[in-house]
Amino acid sequence: MEDILQQACDGELSAAEAAEALRSLAAQPLGFATIDHQRLERCGSAEVIFAEGKTPDQVAVIASAIIERSGAALITRAGGAHVDALRAKLGDLPMLTDSHQRTLLMGQQPPVENESAIVIVTAGTSDQSVAQEAQVTCAAMGMGAVMINDVGVAGLHRLGAKLDVLRKASVVICIAGMEGALPSVIGGLVDVPVIAVPTSVGYGAAFDGIAALLGMLTSCASGVVVVNIDNGFGAAHAACLMARKMSLATTDGHG
Amino acid sequence: MEDILQQACDGELSAAEAAEALRSLAAQPLGFATIDHQRLERCGSAEVIFAEGKTPDQVAVIASAIIERSGAALITRAGGAHVDALRAKLGDLPMLTDSHQRTLLMGQQPPVENESAIVIVTAGTSDQSVAQEAQVTCAAMGMGAVMINDVGVAGLHRLGAKLDVLRKASVVICIAGMEGALPSVIGGLVDVPVIAVPTSVGYGAAFDGIAALLGMLTSCASGVVVVNIDNGFGAAHAACLMARKMSLATTDGHG
Amino acid sequence: MEDILQQACDGELSAAEAAEALRSLAAQPLGFATIDHQRLERCGSAEVIFAEGKTPDQVAVIASAIIERSGAALITRAGGAHVDALRAKLGDLPMLTDSHQRTLLMGQQPPVENESAIVIVTAGTSDQSVAQEAQVTCAAMGMGAVMINDVGVAGLHRLGAKLDVLRKASVVICIAGMEGALPSVIGGLVDVPVIAVPTSVGYGAAFDGIAALLGMLTSCASGVVVVNIDNGFGAAHAACLMARKMSLATTDGHG
Amino acid sequence: MEDILQQACDGELSAAEAAEALRSLAAQPLGFATIDHQRLERCGSAEVIFAEGKTPDQVAVIASAIIERSGAALITRAGGAHVDALRAKLGDLPMLTDSHQRTLLMGQQPPVENESAIVIVTAGTSDQSVAQEAQVTCAAMGMGAVMINDVGVAGLHRLGAKLDVLRKASVVICIAGMEGALPSVIGGLVDVPVIAVPTSVGYGAAFDGIAALLGMLTSCASGVVVVNIDNGFGAAHAACLMARKMSLATTDGHG
Amino acid sequence: MEDILQQACDGELSAAEAAEALRSLAAQPLGFATIDHQRLERCGSAEVIFAEGKTPDQVAVIASAIIERSGAALITRAGGAHVDALRAKLGDLPMLTDSHQRTLLMGQQPPVENESAIVIVTAGTSDQSVAQEAQVTCAAMGMGAVMINDVGVAGLHRLGAKLDVLRKASVVICIAGMEGALPSVIGGLVDVPVIAVPTSVGYGAAFDGIAALLGMLTSCASGVVVVNIDNGFGAAHAACLMARKMSLATTDGHG
Amino acid sequence: MEDILQQACDGELSAAEAAEALRSLAAQPLGFATIDHQRLERCGSAEVIFAEGKTPDQVAVIASAIIERSGAALITRAGGAHVDALRAKLGDLPMLTDSHQRTLLMGQQPPVENESAIVIVTAGTSDQSVAQEAQVTCAAMGMGAVMINDVGVAGLHRLGAKLDVLRKASVVICIAGMEGALPSVIGGLVDVPVIAVPTSVGYGAAFDGIAALLGMLTSCASGVVVVNIDNGFGAAHAACLMARKMSLATTDGHG
Amino acid sequence: MEDILQQACDGELSAAEAAEALRSLAAQPLGFATIDHQRLERCGSAEVIFAEGKTPDQVAVIASAIIERSGAALITRAGGAHVDALRAKLGDLPMLTDSHQRTLLMGQQPPVENESAIVIVTAGTSDQSVAQEAQVTCAAMGMGAVMINDVGVAGLHRLGAKLDVLRKASVVICIAGMEGALPSVIGGLVDVPVIAVPTSVGYGAAFDGIAALLGMLTSCASGVVVVNIDNGFGAAHAACLMARKMSLATTDGHG
Amino acid sequence: MEDILQQACDGELSAAEAAEALRSLAAQPLGFATIDHQRLERCGSAEVIFAEGKTPDQVAVIASAIIERSGAALITRAGGAHVDALRAKLGDLPMLTDSHQRTLLMGQQPPVENESAIVIVTAGTSDQSVAQEAQVTCAAMGMGAVMINDVGVAGLHRLGAKLDVLRKASVVICIAGMEGALPSVIGGLVDVPVIAVPTSVGYGAAFDGIAALLGMLTSCASGVVVVNIDNGFGAAHAACLMARKMSLATTDGHG
Repeated sequence: MEDILQQACDGELSAAEAAEALRSLAAQPLGFATIDHQRLERCGSAEVIFAEGKTPDQVAVIASAIIERSGAALITRAGGAHVDALRAKLGDLPMLTDSHQRTLLMGQQPPVENESAIVIVTAGTSDQSVAQEAQVTCAAMGMGAVMINDVGVAGLHRLGAKLDVLRKASVVICIAGMEGALPSVIGGLVDVPVIAVPTSVGYGAAFDGIAALLGMLTSCASGVVVVNIDNGFGAAHAACLMARKMSLATTDGHG
Repeated sequence: MEDILQQACDGELSAAEAAEALRSLAAQPLGFATIDHQRLERCGSAEVIFAEGKTPDQVAVIASAIIERSGAALITRAGGAHVDALRAKLGDLPMLTDSHQRTLLMGQQPPVENESAIVIVTAGTSDQSVAQEAQVTCAAMGMGAVMINDVGVAGLHRLGAKLDVLRKASVVICIAGMEGALPSVIGGLVDVPVIAVPTSVGYGAAFDGIAALLGMLTSCASGVVVVNIDNGFGAAHAACLMARKMSLATTDGHG
Repeated sequence: MEDILQQACDGELSAAEAAEALRSLAAQPLGFATIDHQRLERCGSAEVIFAEGKTPDQVAVIASAIIERSGAALITRAGGAHVDALRAKLGDLPMLTDSHQRTLLMGQQPPVENESAIVIVTAGTSDQSVAQEAQVTCAAMGMGAVMINDVGVAGLHRLGAKLDVLRKASVVICIAGMEGALPSVIGGLVDVPVIAVPTSVGYGAAFDGIAALLGMLTSCASGVVVVNIDNGFGAAHAACLMARKMSLATTDGHG
Repeated sequence: MEDILQQACDGELSAAEAAEALRSLAAQPLGFATIDHQRLERCGSAEVIFAEGKTPDQVAVIASAIIERSGAALITRAGGAHVDALRAKLGDLPMLTDSHQRTLLMGQQPPVENESAIVIVTAGTSDQSVAQEAQVTCAAMGMGAVMINDVGVAGLHRLGAKLDVLRKASVVICIAGMEGALPSVIGGLVDVPVIAVPTSVGYGAAFDGIAALLGMLTSCASGVVVVNIDNGFGAAHAACLMARKMSLATTDGHG
Repeated sequence: MEDILQQACDGELSAAEAAEALRSLAAQPLGFATIDHQRLERCGSAEVIFAEGKTPDQVAVIASAIIERSGAALITRAGGAHVDALRAKLGDLPMLTDSHQRTLLMGQQPPVENESAIVIVTAGTSDQSVAQEAQVTCAAMGMGAVMINDVGVAGLHRLGAKLDVLRKASVVICIAGMEGALPSVIGGLVDVPVIAVPTSVGYGAAFDGIAALLGMLTSCASGVVVVNIDNGFGAAHAACLMARKMSLATTDGHG
Repeated sequence: MEDILQQACDGELSAAEAAEALRSLAAQPLGFATIDHQRLERCGSAEVIFAEGKTPDQVAVIASAIIERSGAALITRAGGAHVDALRAKLGDLPMLTDSHQRTLLMGQQPPVENESAIVIVTAGTSDQSVAQEAQVTCAAMGMGAVMINDVGVAGLHRLGAKLDVLRKASVVICIAGMEGALPSVIGGLVDVPVIAVPTSVGYGAAFDGIAALLGMLTSCASGVVVVNIDNGFGAAHAACLMARKMSLATTDGHG
Repeated sequence: MEDILQQACDGELSAAEAAEALRSLAAQPLGFATIDHQRLERCGSAEVIFAEGKTPDQVAVIASAIIERSGAALITRAGGAHVDALRAKLGDLPMLTDSHQRTLLMGQQPPVENESAIVIVTAGTSDQSVAQEAQVTCAAMGMGAVMINDVGVAGLHRLGAKLDVLRKASVVICIAGMEGALPSVIGGLVDVPVIAVPTSVGYGAAFDGIAALLGMLTSCASGVVVVNIDNGFGAAHAACLMARKMSLATTDGHG
Repeated sequence: MEDILQQACDGELSAAEAAEALRSLAAQPLGFATIDHQRLERCGSAEVIFAEGKTPDQVAVIASAIIERSGAALITRAGGAHVDALRAKLGDLPMLTDSHQRTLLMGQQPPVENESAIVIVTAGTSDQSVAQEAQVTCAAMGMGAVMINDVGVAGLHRLGAKLDVLRKASVVICIAGMEGALPSVIGGLVDVPVIAVPTSVGYGAAFDGIAALLGMLTSCASGVVVVNIDNGFGAAHAACLMARKMSLATTDGHG
């Protein structure tokens, strides 16, 4: 903002040009999109691009505009064509991604604040793509995440072996499909918030994640909150807001 | 049947009367109902009276007809008026019932074959009325049932303390509302069939038992089978068929 | 625990009595219930009593057992008969309650750690009973809560006037019925987690809170997590876990 | 109609031929279809062709018959094969279409009555295909439409920047997926009818547009009416009926 | 507003008092509610009170505050206790109401602008309470409404006899339960917008209005828009916005 | 109609009065209702009064108007207050009713054409109230109906004993709750149409008749058609249309 | 049967062979299938082959076995591979089919009893594939069927022009997607049974035919019965049973 | 376990190595998975691999690890790529599979304990793939299974011919799609538990198996328990637990 004002003072920008530039600091109109550049300031992270339903071109243009301002852009639920268009437009930029290239962090990855504040637990191996979406999101927000995989309730001793890791967490993200029972069990074992992510793993009465979603919403454990089916991104985003606040608090405390 | 034939031979019954009597051995028409007296022989237990939607009078008349033939009648989902009508018509008969008088065994209670083959586990105290329906049903079929109450997944150590009882069971009936996660945990701990009963305990997204029902149907544990919401009767009935067969097998083995 | 051991050493308890006493420290069997006394230690708060589906007597007995150990008991979704039974058994104890006496804190209220870490926002006046359930829960966990009422999205300037309060929160609980849009708007204005509580306020296609629930789960704002319909208790419980961790972090920092 | 009668008077048509011709003025039977030519007169616009479930040939034949009578035909939800068949049969006719060629206006585009009476607002870039369906429909009915894209509720200041455009509208069409909250916010800002269009944008609990649909039906803002999921056509059609009536009223007033 | 400023100038209000007074012009905080007094200006009608879920007292206090500013208040979905509280607090004010006293206009009824712009049609006599809610709402917004009752699609000739009335309308509100087919038929007969209101009339697969709602959303007629089940208020509100704009247009035209 | 014309010719009616009288032959406006007197002629039976949602007075006035023209009126889903109002207004008329006075035929009962063309079968005693609604409806349309009660699929031999009655039917109405399996079995045994009526008998996953409804719609037997849940009236009405046509055919054959 | 007995008498079949042959008259076991050859006799038509979920081979083998006994086989919901397998095995047999080769009558087509007893009406051109399934089924059962296409409720005059054809029908099959309103209108115009077939035509809230299904089940017209979504076969089968009975009745009358 | 200890004693393993080896006896961490090797001991069968959502590689690695410990691995819901990966890694191992290679038993097939304790019944030929999943599962658990195919309720005499086989079963698995009525009929004929498996066979209101699922859950026969839609594996697993217990009982009896 100061740059713009300086340029106006220096006569490099007319008053009208400066006003337009200031307005686009907050919301940059691209015709098919209106980028919310203020979001970083208001909400603690830049706008995230939901790729589904957008053309590859639109995704690449939006990503480019966000990276220009914020240094990096997070893209979720991308398909192959989206990835190609991003590479074509922004190819020399570093890219962090999950193993299926559905979640992508283009641009500079922020330094990691805290390696182990967030623990991501999956009930089964089939839940892993959702867990990776969460992991990339944590990275995009500068938080590390410890993974504990395949410790579903039908073999609870597997979870028992990881209790020490769990109990060191500031927030637990618990990802499960089918009956989605794992968050209830974990919620009964820890004194930190548990963010439950239902997945569409299962068939028949799993109804693409509804069984797990309902199970998590009606959990008999008290500290469990829930996000949308397969929404690894949302869970990680919320977890980072929490963990970051906890770190900030600690840091403030030091001051 | 032999009685009827004897009476026919003795001339106490005309041929037509005897034929009618024989037919009613299998199915006794009451106008508003057709009692299936053959069921005991075919299915191992007499017809059970589902009281909802029947008038008190209808329930009392049907119960009376069944008791006359089988010595006892089991009535489920009865209301106060049904109980009154039963008492009025059959008052001097012994009656075994749950604490809310919704499930009633009128007439002679059969001797108990096996005190501990069936274990009934509830996730919470609010599931108890369903557990009692199961308990009275077991009694009606001559099987004992051990109760373990309020050991839901948010405090699993409570279940751990009862593992020895659980592992002695031939069949486990597991009753849970809300997210209905308990059967998955128990199914991962025992090598006998687990009959899961979802209950309508809960609110909001519990949807009167749908959340628990879906959770149980999609359980990640393998030996879990499911019955209708709040159907303590059906779970106990199936459990008794299983346990009885196991006992019979043992007994046959002795012979 | 030390008391028990001392009594055993002193010969006041036999070995068997001491063992039994120790076991009941963790899980106290009442027949119809098994109280999880360890929960306070594991999860940061004592077991909470969900009154629906329990008899008044059962609620009073459980509350009494919890208070004996923890000093206070929180009861949710109580009806008039439950309140009467509690008063009869525990009448001289202090009681904190919402204006409809559905949520009750019996016993000693803990001191409040932080007056303004949690902000509770309602979309409409009809959402207030859920907000009060949250408020009593916060009190039970020793956290204060600031209330902002009736600032739904059809008149957003009302929310605008409260932005300063909102932005000081560590966690926001946002309670809304009908279309449940408020959490999305708030999620776009703050950089802290927003716990969204759908309420059953509305009619027709509101489907007793389903419309709001789905809206919140699919929120376009990123930091929003969701609890069950009308679950003011669960939202507050999770919020307190978060806020407490933030405070602890700060305190630890000082050390 | 006058032509037919004249021809009959002139002996160019027999009485029977004339009767048949008159009948087909109202409803022209094509065997697999019965075209409602009276609709323009009754309802203010010619029959519109819903292409899904029709063979390419059927669509081309119906379009041709409508164009012959009305000069133009609007086709919605067309696929590639439909477009090919239309081009093959009617290739030299002008065609107005959205960027995915799903909505097509074949034939003469009517002059535009009013450039800015209708404002189309989308919550996100992914809603754009529905917005274009609405835009082509407006063109087919001779109304202009101003587009405001990507101003969803998670960044409301983007909407604020467009309030002046919004407040000049006679009708607002508001298109949103996910939680569908935008119409509630706009409904609270303007004094004209808001036609809300839920879209199938989203995943999981968005349930292909159900979340947005329910949210819009239960909007806390009063002037909001709703159409089917992804029904840009229907929204635009209704908006044009409203806007046209307003213009007519104005015009009548001048007379 | 001018009054306040005058009082400030005259020293009757301190600066702080004046600021507070000005703020409450826009949003008046009542603790449990925050009245949106700006709504009249923004949206063309004062805030409407949805009584369900509010205590009688709350409704009366809010109504009183609105009447003080706007001269009248519209209350929907009131119960007997709400009516009593309103009468107690505002008893001497004129009150316009439907025959079940569910929708109430307290205070001064505005003059009626146009007696016949809005036509309300019901499919059956059982839909009448919803029609009356619409009628009182029209009165509150200063518009007349013509009623055509009980002309459902199983006896279409009844509708035929009213075509002249229908075709004079600027907007049609069409109210139907069960299969909700009437709006499709009317939508095919008129060239004005049809606002369809599904009602909860019916049983079984009518699912409390869902059958009608789905039918209306998927209407094969093009100008049909839909509101929530039983939402006579919302339909009338939207209809008045439309009809008023049409009248304003005409009036502006004269100028 | 002739009466009216004669009166007009005789000067007892003015032209205007005669026109009005003729119009009301087809559709008699009562303000809150518009009676379709033409329905008898068009559809083979007079309009039937669905009492739910109508005031007692409205039902009595409509019934009176229909009886005046047709000699009798059929009222379905009446409550106690409706019956009282009917008796008050029409008390000296004969009344045929089911045992709960929910379905009432007021006025003259037509002679019965055929005693055994229609067979009504119920799966259980709890389905009887729906069966009685069907029975009264048959009587209102001049058809007899044979009842076979309580022959559900868990005891099929009971049905076997009635095969001869079933196979003499022209149409079978089959009424069942819970899983609604009986129509599939009967559809595989007869060569006449089977009208299946799902009932709301059952609990839990019976979902007030949805389980039975879906089961009947997806029946593996081919001649099964379905009506709404608990719609004994509709099933009987359709059955009578079928049976009557069969009789008429026979009669016509004689001529 | 007589053939078998004769062969046994003649010594061409042993007693065991004859018994086996007799049993297979009723039910022929093919390993993966058990053909119900008795169905023709019991239900008036041979078993029909539902091709979905069967391998092409299975369909061809079953068809061949049925044709051997009954002269023809009806196959529904076939795919291309099924048709190929049928042609490969039965290629020289006559085949009657719809235009998409989904419904096939292989073998001898029975003579048509009645050309116009059944009238098939569609609401739109997109409903035609279901109508054709019905038409082929009628042919397989020896009944003609008159088609009236594309006369949906948004242009009712199209239906009016066909009233004379409709009123000559013995049964009407009415096929409609979207809101499925046509059967209600037709049910109010004729005195014969109307079999309503909901189709999956539509999108969004049409929910693949659920909207039409619910609309038809809750029709305000009385003689409407319903079959499964897209079930042209079932509707035609039931219609033929009705129409055949009517013809038989007439014929019997002559004798 | 003894091997490990011996190696430790012999100094072949360090203490740390031995501890690690012991831990992995119970739960072997593979990074993306945590194999529960203790399950065989706890639950009577080794962990089963649900292939959906796992990469081919993951499935092959897990299978290999299980086979190493238990001699064989059961894989369900595999696709072609999974099979290829398994063959590549484990190609020389024996493989038992259904005809579509969706369920695979890799490794040594256990000897069959009892050839006829379990009877698998299907309602139609289209249910066969689910039946085969059950059959392979039985083989994996060392139990035989008798198949009775295509004996649905529309031709019950086909079932009658198999009653002797049915009545010899210890457990019946009953597999049916569409309305899923067969378990109710069988439940009324036998005195052993019936495990009902709904299948996704059917269309329209079959809702991919929901109709059958609800029908089975609400069965009027008492001994019926239910598993998830298309869950042949789960049904067979539970059946084997039951049948095995019965055999064990018998065997124990001999001892």
